[in-house]
Amino acid sequence: MTQEDYLERVTQYIKDSEDELAQFKAITSYHSGQYDDDASWKSLNQYVTENEDKRGCAPGQRNRVYYMALPPSVFVPVSKGVKKNVYVQDGVNRLIVEKPFGMDTASSNELGKELGALFTENEIYRIDHYLGKEMVKNVMTMRFSNIFFSQIWDRKYIDNVQITFKETIGTEGRGGYFDDFGILRDVMQNHLLQVLSLIAMERPISTESEAIRDEKVKVLKCIPPISPDDALLGQYVAANGKPGYLDDDTLKNKKSRTPTYAALTLWIQNERWEGVPFIMKAGKALDTAKVEIRIQFRNVAGSLYKGAPRNELVMRVQPREAVYIKFNNKQPGLSYGTIQSDLDLSYHDRFTDMKIPDAYESLILDVLRNDHSNFVRDDELETAWSIFTPLLHQIDQRTDLPLHTYPYGSRGPAELDAFVRKYGYDRSNANYSWPVQSVSHANSSNKL
Amino acid sequence: MTQEDYLERVTQYIKDSEDELAQFKAITSYHSGQYDDDASWKSLNQYVTENEDKRGCAPGQRNRVYYMALPPSVFVPVSKGVKKNVYVQDGVNRLIVEKPFGMDTASSNELGKELGALFTENEIYRIDHYLGKEMVKNVMTMRFSNIFFSQIWDRKYIDNVQITFKETIGTEGRGGYFDDFGILRDVMQNHLLQVLSLIAMERPISTESEAIRDEKVKVLKCIPPISPDDALLGQYVAANGKPGYLDDDTLKNKKSRTPTYAALTLWIQNERWEGVPFIMKAGKALDTAKVEIRIQFRNVAGSLYKGAPRNELVMRVQPREAVYIKFNNKQPGLSYGTIQSDLDLSYHDRFTDMKIPDAYESLILDVLRNDHSNFVRDDELETAWSIFTPLLHQIDQRTDLPLHTYPYGSRGPAELDAFVRKYGYDRSNANYSWPVQSVSHANSSNKL
Repeated sequence: MTQEDYLERVTQYIKDSEDELAQFKAITSYHSGQYDDDASWKSLNQYVTENEDKRGCAPGQRNRVYYMALPPSVFVPVSKGVKKNVYVQDGVNRLIVEKPFGMDTASSNELGKELGALFTENEIYRIDHYLGKEMVKNVMTMRFSNIFFSQIWDRKYIDNVQITFKETIGTEGRGGYFDDFGILRDVMQNHLLQVLSLIAMERPISTESEAIRDEKVKVLKCIPPISPDDALLGQYVAANGKPGYLDDDTLKNKKSRTPTYAALTLWIQNERWEGVPFIMKAGKALDTAKVEIRIQFRNVAGSLYKGAPRNELVMRVQPREAVYIKFNNKQPGLSYGTIQSDLDLSYHDRFTDMKIPDAYESLILDVLRNDHSNFVRDDELETAWSIFTPLLHQIDQRTDLPLHTYPYGSRGPAELDAFVRKYGYDRSNANYSWPVQSVSHANSSNKL
Repeated sequence: MTQEDYLERVTQYIKDSEDELAQFKAITSYHSGQYDDDASWKSLNQYVTENEDKRGCAPGQRNRVYYMALPPSVFVPVSKGVKKNVYVQDGVNRLIVEKPFGMDTASSNELGKELGALFTENEIYRIDHYLGKEMVKNVMTMRFSNIFFSQIWDRKYIDNVQITFKETIGTEGRGGYFDDFGILRDVMQNHLLQVLSLIAMERPISTESEAIRDEKVKVLKCIPPISPDDALLGQYVAANGKPGYLDDDTLKNKKSRTPTYAALTLWIQNERWEGVPFIMKAGKALDTAKVEIRIQFRNVAGSLYKGAPRNELVMRVQPREAVYIKFNNKQPGLSYGTIQSDLDLSYHDRFTDMKIPDAYESLILDVLRNDHSNFVRDDELETAWSIFTPLLHQIDQRTDLPLHTYPYGSRGPAELDAFVRKYGYDRSNANYSWPVQSVSHANSSNKL
């Protein structure tokens, strides 16, 4: 590619004004080379140095960020090339690494060891873009700046927690890549487990990054490996004119048992959470696209209002960020029955001049600010793998583990409702609707 | 008046259809007489009996409700006339009494004694129309059907409670009547104290009316008489082209010291509430018209987010019923600061087919249903007077109690802010607005 080809390619989908695009292009450049060739890296170093000189970088200001959006197979050779030939001694070096960070505990540790020999932990930013999402970043603020939430955030009040990731698209054309990973490695061991740790961790001593990451590691260490008994696995089949997972041309193994759907229940063995199921659900080719955190509270003990459903706190990560609480009111009007409604904060309705950055935009700024809060530390990664590795190996090795099918475009395997019910989730949405609802058709629990 | 005059008069402001008005007129009739004249009452009884006969009332179905919307001076003679001449032996008799129920403990007890000699407590319905308001009736449901609220409803989590009644109109043309009562007797000893007792009472053993009224009496008995030190009294003066209270032609005492505004702090001496100020504020000729309950929670102890304001739960009784919680979020966007926003349920936006009855409509239906829940029991009334009577006597008798002036159309006496601050209320509305708000001008407490 020429510089012009490159700029054309990277800006083709950007919708900003001509002026802004021109500014962006003026500070963006392209240099090509081979991953495993020292001469290429030296040439890159010279190219970067010249650019820094042109911009008048003083000694000590040659600060470089390396972003490795690369196949995992070249992580190590590229890191070696960078360290040997491009790394600056009189400035700051920061290395951003994209997942996958290995396939299991052993391969992740091996990768960590090799990267660790080249870069310090402080120089490495393992990016998990879910930690850059507005509502995920809001979990800590919500929990710890509102007495309303902080005081009922434990097993005495919370019955179960669900973290849900739903995509409407399948793996179309990417099945060959996906088949090596499956839904557990693709979004659960990383994204959803990160969200879980933010919900479940103890209060950090400060908002400093190491204080936060210390607490995340601590809570993850309280989670035993996921039992196959706590897993519901699924794979989608053709429906609604859409192909099944196994129909994908790029798939090598036409009898693949790789799950494209999973519901997993994790248990946290500490004083705050013992006995509270954390249910992660993730799948492709489903009926709707959304990511949300749903915290279901316990029943009111000895309730005066029989049949009034449980409170729920929902944080919708995407689409259209929102926080809402499902709660009970007197049914408006002459009745003394109850009606379930909600207390709502829909970001796009409430904030007039909101600009929610893309997760990557936010995280790259964090790297420039040297804020590791929203990046995965080495011990955190290792602990995350320890929770998932035994189950992943069983899925890879055992053919007797049930793999349920589900139609493309459905809610997931038919066994899902029974699965979540087993862990106490009480689905009571009768006559509840959003954003408006009928009073007269309310499912009321009338006063005797 | 003739029957026609009467029907014309009582329907002149009703906006229903001709059909509905005709139905209403067909079951409404007029009969005149003297309050203290047995012949008049006997004539009424005959008139009612004939009407019952026409409608085919069987023996035992002569059920009569007497609604006394009368000057207090004739409560007793009318009750006597009814009891002696109209009361049915083979049916149900129910007597609805409108406030004022006396002027203080002694006069209220005297009235109670005289009424009690004529009607049983079960036959008497002391109406307080605030108990018929939708959001006041919702207090119990909200508190006891949501674990979210029930678990943080005490002194550990709640810093202070405010119950606010604001009217924009003064006493224009009614000063002569109002001057005997003042704002404390007009709305505080009755309406606002009723609201307070619903907020503060312990959980009743059931939703039966006596169970509820037992708890209301119990909590009221824990409130000592209001100290003059806990009272801020005011009287409005001419401003904005509007007359002052003392300018009213109907006012006999042109040097009246009757308060048209009061802020009173009540203390509940029990395990749940000791140390939590319940601040009642009520006034006429103010800047806005509204009635609301505002529960301010405590600061988060050792907060990670310095400067993040307190949570508040607001139940807006009128206008436009709503429940909302002021709470903190991460400021949307690249900042890690906090922003105060709210979780909202605005009834008129949420419910599609809502018909909120007028408070009287709802309460009269309760009388027909023999449901005393939302009526004031004799011991409840006596306890309410015991809380207010000493202060009322001091206001009536002492000329050294400060009486602050405030301009017609203002927020109240200038001393108000200092008064509520003294009890710990933390007013931090900087840059908060409703129903939409700006992110960029948020009063953020930035990280570090």
